[in-house]
Amino acid sequence: MRTDAEELIGAVLDGDRRAVARAISMVEDQLPGKVELLQGLYTRGNHTYICGVTGPPGAGKSTLVDKIAGYARQEGKQVGIVCVDPTSPFSGGALLGDRIRMPDLSTDPGVFIRSMATRGSRGGLARATREVVILLGATGVDQVLLETVGVGQIELDIAETADTTMVVLVPESGDGIQAMKAGLMEIGDIFVINKADRDGAEGLKIELESVLAMREDKEWVPPVLKTMANTGEGTTELVETVQEHRSFLDRSGEGERRRRQRLAAYVMEIVLETLTRRLWRESGLQEQLDGRLDDVMEGRIDPFTVAEEILTAGGMPASLEGEDA
Amino acid sequence: MRTDAEELIGAVLDGDRRAVARAISMVEDQLPGKVELLQGLYTRGNHTYICGVTGPPGAGKSTLVDKIAGYARQEGKQVGIVCVDPTSPFSGGALLGDRIRMPDLSTDPGVFIRSMATRGSRGGLARATREVVILLGATGVDQVLLETVGVGQIELDIAETADTTMVVLVPESGDGIQAMKAGLMEIGDIFVINKADRDGAEGLKIELESVLAMREDKEWVPPVLKTMANTGEGTTELVETVQEHRSFLDRSGEGERRRRQRLAAYVMEIVLETLTRRLWRESGLQEQLDGRLDDVMEGRIDPFTVAEEILTAGGMPASLEGEDA
Repeated sequence: MRTDAEELIGAVLDGDRRAVARAISMVEDQLPGKVELLQGLYTRGNHTYICGVTGPPGAGKSTLVDKIAGYARQEGKQVGIVCVDPTSPFSGGALLGDRIRMPDLSTDPGVFIRSMATRGSRGGLARATREVVILLGATGVDQVLLETVGVGQIELDIAETADTTMVVLVPESGDGIQAMKAGLMEIGDIFVINKADRDGAEGLKIELESVLAMREDKEWVPPVLKTMANTGEGTTELVETVQEHRSFLDRSGEGERRRRQRLAAYVMEIVLETLTRRLWRESGLQEQLDGRLDDVMEGRIDPFTVAEEILTAGGMPASLEGEDA
Repeated sequence: MRTDAEELIGAVLDGDRRAVARAISMVEDQLPGKVELLQGLYTRGNHTYICGVTGPPGAGKSTLVDKIAGYARQEGKQVGIVCVDPTSPFSGGALLGDRIRMPDLSTDPGVFIRSMATRGSRGGLARATREVVILLGATGVDQVLLETVGVGQIELDIAETADTTMVVLVPESGDGIQAMKAGLMEIGDIFVINKADRDGAEGLKIELESVLAMREDKEWVPPVLKTMANTGEGTTELVETVQEHRSFLDRSGEGERRRRQRLAAYVMEIVLETLTRRLWRESGLQEQLDGRLDDVMEGRIDPFTVAEEILTAGGMPASLEGEDA
């Protein structure tokens, strides 16, 4: 008898769009069967190339992503578009939630578009994103465009998920470079100044290039491109640059190094999650913690001793001495 | 016979400045004896009030921190100043590294100043910061001012370490609010517009207040203050506002709630670190991973199965099925 998961695996491999949507929901919501599903699909999927696209709101990321997807479709390749929406606790709304895609893309069976919202921890979102990419790879998608708004931390987590990271700025972004972009400057493989007909585009390009020239990684000096996504100006060159970086990753071994690092981190995440879950469940960690936290608050006991108690209750050797080794 | 750790504990409790400096280095560098040291000091320390001060470079955080420390000294209280320096991979330099403190503070025996650099993971820095605060609490320090540059993620981790989080901006910061400050807007308990004689200060104040009014947390609507740290204008009011927030935390139970959450997270961190270390060491996790990663890369095996192998080798029940529950 086939299990539900086996049935779903088969449908995803067949490229059944509704099955893919259901599988993605299982991963996002951590539903029963998720592990079986991913186990079944992982070894049968492609290695999917992932291009992360990040930058401040309003920089035109969505339009650029649509353009890049359009080029890939012209070559007959299947494309996934995953939009990661950091939801603000203020508004309860998602910054990308109401975006409107190019109509020809959203009806194209060769394009799979999915929005993901921030739920719970930042780490959880990065992991769910990684797993959605596994699912899309199993459907035969050649490349995934991963679009995130660069407001804080999420884009850094997501960058770790991508092969190529593209940072999209606008001419006005210049003001904040030193102050705000340290994180973005370091993760970018390709920089795009969109809306380049506005004042300051060339100045920002020169500024970016001078900062990027200082990067120690000399094999790939991130290029800075100017585009106008709305008219399409510069987008052909951008697509070629993305392709160049993809070739560079293959040629130099850097792509393999990044994938290896990513997979090692993923395995470690699974191991740690499993252990954490066991502790919470089997050692009654929640009760242990609750029962002891008042003592910790009042300074009657220290956090290390409580950690030892929890490990002991979970049937694990409690010694923390390794902390010192 | 007293161990080295016991000797050091005694000296720290006596407020011996060189001992405190040595203890901080032990924590920063994860040296042997760190756990014994923290265990010995935790239960004997004060609950130290922590005020985090964050914002973009050049906003005048250091000058404000010095002013606040000066007020506390006038009341005869001991103060710790911890500067967390995010080190850029580009320059190899620390943004705060070469700052110059007010001379009267750096020679005051009632003030303990320490800079901490980003080493390794972001999580590691937040944890080291937390542990340095434990050490300072043991010396009898009443409050710790935790200064971080807001460039990316670190300030969010640090905010979780603080009782009160103060966000320091300058009038020019207005441009980037929507784009960049989502993270900062959410963590701030008090907002300061420093260098308030410059153009745009009042406009930024109004803008901030309108955004902050939307926060769901109605018990404490974060006030927006204008200061000129260099002349001292507005700093008395700022110190009073910090004191008001401290009272609010005590009165409302919010302070206890934050501390409780923080301590629970700290215990969990210790538990997970211990488990991870055991796995790396005792199950030869590194070799396990290295030996299997090629298979994962080539799609011959999936990450979940490798995680199970590692757990089994570490003597832990491997079942991942709980993932589904």
